[in-house]
Amino acid sequence: MQASRSLAQTFAALGDPTRMAILSRLAAQGELTVQEIAAPFAMSLPAVSQHLKVLEHAGLIARGRDGQKRPCRLNVEQFAAAAGWFDHTRAAWEARFDRLERFLATTETKGDGHGR
Amino acid sequence: MQASRSLAQTFAALGDPTRMAILSRLAAQGELTVQEIAAPFAMSLPAVSQHLKVLEHAGLIARGRDGQKRPCRLNVEQFAAAAGWFDHTRAAWEARFDRLERFLATTETKGDGHGR
Repeated sequence: MQASRSLAQTFAALGDPTRMAILSRLAAQGELTVQEIAAPFAMSLPAVSQHLKVLEHAGLIARGRDGQKRPCRLNVEQFAAAAGWFDHTRAAWEARFDRLERFLATTETKGDGHGR
Repeated sequence: MQASRSLAQTFAALGDPTRMAILSRLAAQGELTVQEIAAPFAMSLPAVSQHLKVLEHAGLIARGRDGQKRPCRLNVEQFAAAAGWFDHTRAAWEARFDRLERFLATTETKGDGHGR
């Protein structure tokens, strides 16, 4: 439950298009300063900082200690944990679907002698 | 932007452990009634219905028209879209990492003649 609470917090942090965009850029470009992150957005630095705090609190980014800059990078572990929830849930869905297909195949084979 | 706004809404809907648990069960078990969904939770039916409304509004579940029951099932398309965002972001991260590795390998090769 603790794990899913933490993952829920991670998903909640992703529930905003600006934060999704920030995370996509960090994934593609690596470490970026707050100024670099803010550049493409029509948004004040404090507003961007607030988004970064939410992402950091949710474990999705980590911040360096390079003086005043505090560059941000993707926290791969938490990102992978969130992605893993999707993989896991998708696998459960596919397993159910496979069982259903096998069941229908059995029914069809049995039905051949009767229905046609 | 519209697409990422809709995905952001999907992630926001997942930002709750109860809604994550409901979605996991629907993935594993297929169609369930509100009563069946509510059974494992110490929660009133109206509270569960509220969670289902959030999931439905975010496109993560669809509801049938079987009289009063309105059974729920996972909406695979939207689930796949959200999972796809993770796949896409992970791919961007891995591509950057590969570039970095290739760059370091080049530097190392070049460095052999000088540093050692």
